[in-house]
Amino acid sequence: MTTLEARFSGLGADNAPGQEVRQSVDQVAALQRGERMDGAPVDFSHGDVDAFPPPPGAEQAWREGYAVGGAQAYTEYRGAAAIREGLAGRLAEFSGAPIDPEQELILTPGTQGALFLAMGAVVADGTKVAIVEPDYFANRKLVRFYGGEIVPIPLRYSGKAGENGPDLDRLEQAFRDGTKVLVFSNPNNPTGHVCSEETINRIAALAAEHGATVIVDQLYSRLLYSGETYTHLRACQTRPENLLTIMGPSKTESLSGFRLGVAFGSAALVDRMEKLQAIVSLRAAGYNQAALTTWFQEPAGWMDQRIAAHEAIRDELLDIFRTAGLPTAAPQAGSYLFPELPPLCVAPEVFVRLLRHQAGVTVTPGSEFGPDSGQSIRLNFSQDHGNAAAAARRIVEMVERYRA
Amino acid sequence: MTTLEARFSGLGADNAPGQEVRQSVDQVAALQRGERMDGAPVDFSHGDVDAFPPPPGAEQAWREGYAVGGAQAYTEYRGAAAIREGLAGRLAEFSGAPIDPEQELILTPGTQGALFLAMGAVVADGTKVAIVEPDYFANRKLVRFYGGEIVPIPLRYSGKAGENGPDLDRLEQAFRDGTKVLVFSNPNNPTGHVCSEETINRIAALAAEHGATVIVDQLYSRLLYSGETYTHLRACQTRPENLLTIMGPSKTESLSGFRLGVAFGSAALVDRMEKLQAIVSLRAAGYNQAALTTWFQEPAGWMDQRIAAHEAIRDELLDIFRTAGLPTAAPQAGSYLFPELPPLCVAPEVFVRLLRHQAGVTVTPGSEFGPDSGQSIRLNFSQDHGNAAAAARRIVEMVERYRA
Repeated sequence: MTTLEARFSGLGADNAPGQEVRQSVDQVAALQRGERMDGAPVDFSHGDVDAFPPPPGAEQAWREGYAVGGAQAYTEYRGAAAIREGLAGRLAEFSGAPIDPEQELILTPGTQGALFLAMGAVVADGTKVAIVEPDYFANRKLVRFYGGEIVPIPLRYSGKAGENGPDLDRLEQAFRDGTKVLVFSNPNNPTGHVCSEETINRIAALAAEHGATVIVDQLYSRLLYSGETYTHLRACQTRPENLLTIMGPSKTESLSGFRLGVAFGSAALVDRMEKLQAIVSLRAAGYNQAALTTWFQEPAGWMDQRIAAHEAIRDELLDIFRTAGLPTAAPQAGSYLFPELPPLCVAPEVFVRLLRHQAGVTVTPGSEFGPDSGQSIRLNFSQDHGNAAAAARRIVEMVERYRA
Repeated sequence: MTTLEARFSGLGADNAPGQEVRQSVDQVAALQRGERMDGAPVDFSHGDVDAFPPPPGAEQAWREGYAVGGAQAYTEYRGAAAIREGLAGRLAEFSGAPIDPEQELILTPGTQGALFLAMGAVVADGTKVAIVEPDYFANRKLVRFYGGEIVPIPLRYSGKAGENGPDLDRLEQAFRDGTKVLVFSNPNNPTGHVCSEETINRIAALAAEHGATVIVDQLYSRLLYSGETYTHLRACQTRPENLLTIMGPSKTESLSGFRLGVAFGSAALVDRMEKLQAIVSLRAAGYNQAALTTWFQEPAGWMDQRIAAHEAIRDELLDIFRTAGLPTAAPQAGSYLFPELPPLCVAPEVFVRLLRHQAGVTVTPGSEFGPDSGQSIRLNFSQDHGNAAAAARRIVEMVERYRA
């Protein structure tokens, strides 16, 4: 059972976003300083789809899918051909390079499903996998699950714009030392850092040179703030032969309740992902796939408005945290803030539980995202603007109460 | 890459049900004997949810879930608490033993998702897993995926009623030789065999005695034909400490397009399944979970009518195949028939492709279900009655044309 224990010791979900409801209150109540705080509870562990609802048409698309019946219930494992056909064109236009809908695109149960299958297609016992730190918490867990070895690549995100980014010298060295896979999110989760064009070109060229596979999680690439630019790795002139791009409509488009994601790229890898999907969950739920017909086809102005609303929340929260002296990088895209806490009289994970039970504010401990991020907390600020600002002020007040 | 290749060499999906659309016609056209046959195409690889639609209320339940919004989109990984609460009571009543909704039940993306997570909770490198042959094709693939070792347990299904069942002496020997897990479907897929009360009691006692984990896939246990009885392993007096029961509303209830399944049993195993689900797909699609409120709450008479309709199709198809001299066991439950073909002038997998392209009849080759079942074909007869009977006659006609 050693191997099973190893598998699950790396899979703790106690502090994972969305699981807070299963935590016991008793453990932290005794440590509480001061009274409970008033105010609408805010769950920053994920976006609030009530504050930012799905695009119009999503429900209707589902109902039309349901009305189709059997053909929509039982699609190919990689997803309904007609839906892939339309989506491939829109994703190709967005990402700047063609996609063969028959060979190079697979629909999955959420972006999480796409990541799980993509990693399963390329990581086995002993595979060295370059992981950016901090980055999405599941990346490291997936490497361990598949028996791979994590090769950490530090991300600088709190310096000046030109100085930020993953450590490319370390990445090159990793590739030289036999690292076969790079997986990273761009925009970065949890910091909102967006890799520069120069960085993406360099990553693509290095991976191509060393024959490494690249999995790039672009989940938040549509929610790009004013003045920022985004470079799609798959559109680089020199790029790796084995490349998968992962996206999904769960975040910016608020379709998380449909559990839909996509991966597109090298046909051989997509083929492996489908084989794996056949034993994991067969397919993304059939009727739900129909909601993808609304994706990249939102009404005119819908996305601009959504970005502007998020930018306004971002700016106010940044102001609240920075004014209080909590160093916080400005996200260039996405809806995550990753403020750094000062030294506290309790461990950060305990502070996070106190925040939830005393201040009605749920955040995710930074330790989920990398071994060196324990002093930060992650907030998904896709929330009601007023409630989010009030909750951010409660975080600041809680920091004062528990300052070491 | 050896290990990756090993992983995917065992995961061929070319002949898997639902994937036939990706097969090339050219390979078999040259072998064709006689003309194409007329008649409505019938896809026996899965049930036809247009012929047997979901229960009334499923669509409305989804819409109500969607209207709930964020709370339904982002459930705990193991599924929405209120839905688990109601379901646990109904599943406990059905299966004859209590279920703690908080600790002993998890909602998954389909029954396939439940199987994947359940096997992941107990199978690691070198784990010996008893697999009934023939049985659901994914069972063997899952053992290989997780690095386990298959210990085959033959199922006798074509003898007289009292003589049929899994070889319990082999099972006992397997447990003595260190087999740690037994996974099997009951009713059996593909034969429709239902284990007797005596057999289930013996399996439960043997597993308890040897400390083995049992995963029993009861997907079809509600579709029980007249005169048959069903014994729930989890209700046995002596039963293993580690036991998971898997079900779902995808088949008899035609909710496959929602991708919903459940596993219930030992809390420690359910806990592991949830940890795994956190990296596989997070959760069963949130809004879809709401459709489970209709499960085991169908209108009075609905299930009786569904069973009677399937029994009528079963009887007619049995008559067609037996009259033509194809040995076919009578399924005691479920909607699968597993007729045996006589020696043919082409390999059975080729015959299956010819059936599809020449006769418009899709079936699944028996080789998917076990190494000794290559001469059979599996039909899911949850189809329009008239079309299914006509298609069965075309199968008989095709057998005559290709008889060796």
